Amino acid sequence: MSTVKRSNNPEDDPRVKAVFDDIRTTRGSDFINNLWQYLAFNPPLLEEIWRDVKAVMATPSLLDPKTKEMIYVAVSIANACSYCVHSHTAAAKAKGMTDAEHAELLRIVTTAARTNHLLNGIQIPIDTRFDADADAG
Amino acid sequence: MSTVKRSNNPEDDPRVKAVFDDIRTTRGSDFINNLWQYLAFNPPLLEEIWRDVKAVMATPSLLDPKTKEMIYVAVSIANACSYCVHSHTAAAKAKGMTDAEHAELLRIVTTAARTNHLLNGIQIPIDTRFDADADAG
Amino acid sequence: MSTVKRSNNPEDDPRVKAVFDDIRTTRGSDFINNLWQYLAFNPPLLEEIWRDVKAVMATPSLLDPKTKEMIYVAVSIANACSYCVHSHTAAAKAKGMTDAEHAELLRIVTTAARTNHLLNGIQIPIDTRFDADADAG
Amino acid sequence: MSTVKRSNNPEDDPRVKAVFDDIRTTRGSDFINNLWQYLAFNPPLLEEIWRDVKAVMATPSLLDPKTKEMIYVAVSIANACSYCVHSHTAAAKAKGMTDAEHAELLRIVTTAARTNHLLNGIQIPIDTRFDADADAG
Amino acid sequence: MSTVKRSNNPEDDPRVKAVFDDIRTTRGSDFINNLWQYLAFNPPLLEEIWRDVKAVMATPSLLDPKTKEMIYVAVSIANACSYCVHSHTAAAKAKGMTDAEHAELLRIVTTAARTNHLLNGIQIPIDTRFDADADAG
Amino acid sequence: MSTVKRSNNPEDDPRVKAVFDDIRTTRGSDFINNLWQYLAFNPPLLEEIWRDVKAVMATPSLLDPKTKEMIYVAVSIANACSYCVHSHTAAAKAKGMTDAEHAELLRIVTTAARTNHLLNGIQIPIDTRFDADADAG
Repeated sequence: MSTVKRSNNPEDDPRVKAVFDDIRTTRGSDFINNLWQYLAFNPPLLEEIWRDVKAVMATPSLLDPKTKEMIYVAVSIANACSYCVHSHTAAAKAKGMTDAEHAELLRIVTTAARTNHLLNGIQIPIDTRFDADADAG
Repeated sequence: MSTVKRSNNPEDDPRVKAVFDDIRTTRGSDFINNLWQYLAFNPPLLEEIWRDVKAVMATPSLLDPKTKEMIYVAVSIANACSYCVHSHTAAAKAKGMTDAEHAELLRIVTTAARTNHLLNGIQIPIDTRFDADADAG
Repeated sequence: MSTVKRSNNPEDDPRVKAVFDDIRTTRGSDFINNLWQYLAFNPPLLEEIWRDVKAVMATPSLLDPKTKEMIYVAVSIANACSYCVHSHTAAAKAKGMTDAEHAELLRIVTTAARTNHLLNGIQIPIDTRFDADADAG
Repeated sequence: MSTVKRSNNPEDDPRVKAVFDDIRTTRGSDFINNLWQYLAFNPPLLEEIWRDVKAVMATPSLLDPKTKEMIYVAVSIANACSYCVHSHTAAAKAKGMTDAEHAELLRIVTTAARTNHLLNGIQIPIDTRFDADADAG
Repeated sequence: MSTVKRSNNPEDDPRVKAVFDDIRTTRGSDFINNLWQYLAFNPPLLEEIWRDVKAVMATPSLLDPKTKEMIYVAVSIANACSYCVHSHTAAAKAKGMTDAEHAELLRIVTTAARTNHLLNGIQIPIDTRFDADADAG
Repeated sequence: MSTVKRSNNPEDDPRVKAVFDDIRTTRGSDFINNLWQYLAFNPPLLEEIWRDVKAVMATPSLLDPKTKEMIYVAVSIANACSYCVHSHTAAAKAKGMTDAEHAELLRIVTTAARTNHLLNGIQIPIDTRFDADADAG
């Protein structure tokens, strides 16, 4: 199911084709997953989302690709995005995350979730020592 | 403010003192932040939470300490835990996260949040290729 | 699947029948979607939820019906309610939301989600200028 | 701060006065907390929210008042509503929740949060045995 | 689908078998639900999660088992964990929750959610009377 | 407090100055709110976030500016972003939202939140009629 209609031939639209070609080139694979297939219902939105994801996730930066995918998975779990958890866990594995690292990621995410709820439950004041802005000047 | 009452002399309780001593030893610092100060209202809960956080965050494991804190921050942001974002961003910085890495973390977290909401909005089927269980046997 | 059992003949209960009749009249349609079918397991809860949804969504008010459905979809996306996203996106389309407006809704929702996470990540003070209560008197 | 302006003399409006009087009578206290003070900016919304909260929380029902407040706190923690956590933790204490029960509530909530994130991370199929609708007929 | 691979013979691993045996003994049932089956992909994580859930949910404490499961369900709903809502609603029913109590739970959870969003929308100051820490000394 | 340090003279950096100038021009106001002041700690992130927010919120599109701000507020409430709720409620008012419309927005958001939790609690199947992809071809 979906809330948008998937086109049978999305690449008939040259804007969609350009994005799909760039996805294939960037990833070195012919596989275009459903996110992009369905997003083709609106080429400007497709272009914008791909531009953002490519800039953050497929461009060399300070953090290595595996770590970036693991952070992405962590956020997707907390936001309860089923599709995103699946796609980015798969991506993290493709970039080298082992089963043991996956288990460690789950340990960190779930422990953070536990203390997040604890602190939201006790509602205590934040230590001034944590204020990065304290000595601005 | 808080929903629990902070004790003036929490270390009069030997169970609290034992946890606080372990926090000081583990961290190599005399500073005990508010989480533990307030959690002293219930020593068994204090012991349990410290045991969990120490096991995951203060014990050598596959991922390096800085990466673990960055994942912790990512989850805390998504769960809107103000205290946790402050304390674990400070911890990540203490373990080497630079301002540029902090900015990159924010880029990843916020881009993930964007696509999390996008996918939760279009509700598309998950590609079978992402199923780790597909070839179980 | 469900956590409640769907009755085969919910309208045998006159309280359920009264709600279903009102749904049909209000919507000008014989279709009763699964929410109400399953909620019939508890007629008082069925009555209460229908009363609220009807009052807010099916009663003329300051905002037009399409805009109201779009706001409803936005909240449902952020709360990761799959059923609600499906049902209210369909309702918004039935009330005139075009595919282009749907795409714009997704742009706004996902950009808001991005900045929501950014602000929850940087935890800055709120400008006093935003305080509606500032000049109360 | 607030996004709505608090009135100096909200009870000059007879609809507000009627709600405030009912709050005082229902609770047997002259104290009107900020939620109702600020909500007075829109009397119909004030009436509606008070009607709902009173019906659920201040009317005898199957669950005892203390348990109801503890469930309310649990949801409020998960939804990161600071005001609600404060007001309903105070209400739970007023209705008999001890510090030890508060600690147990926090243990349950935080353990649930941990497994919620775990399951949202591993995304496994739901056992058919859990389907309440399986033998509908 | 799943992000982890389910083993065909998880109990070939003695650590997994020990946990499964304890689950069967604790619950007095041969049924091992999918959570544990899939979690067997990483025995230390399986052990840790079972230890926590058993300590909180299957050990006599101040709150009765049915109430504990209802609180667990409340949190799981707010965190949009589909699997958890199914498994713990089933557990609550097994521990005595009637359909009428289930409906009341849903009334409380959904009313709390409504006021959670209301308060997060109006962003008012918290009454000092709610501060448990006010008279610490 | 903040997790990033605010610069005293952010416009000494020409990239920051260019963004601030564009904010002033776009909004026709000299006021630069804290989001941009603090985000100046990382000019590329500042540029990227401003580019996105400007494109979505400050560029003529299908939806009118007031409606767009109201949708933004709705998402921000659901994501518990205090700063965002404040800044975008103020923006919605500046673009014409009356107090009565604000109250209606809160009614819709909170009713949606209620049914979001209800549906996440009963976990029923989605009606096939809602599937936009059903007759794709």
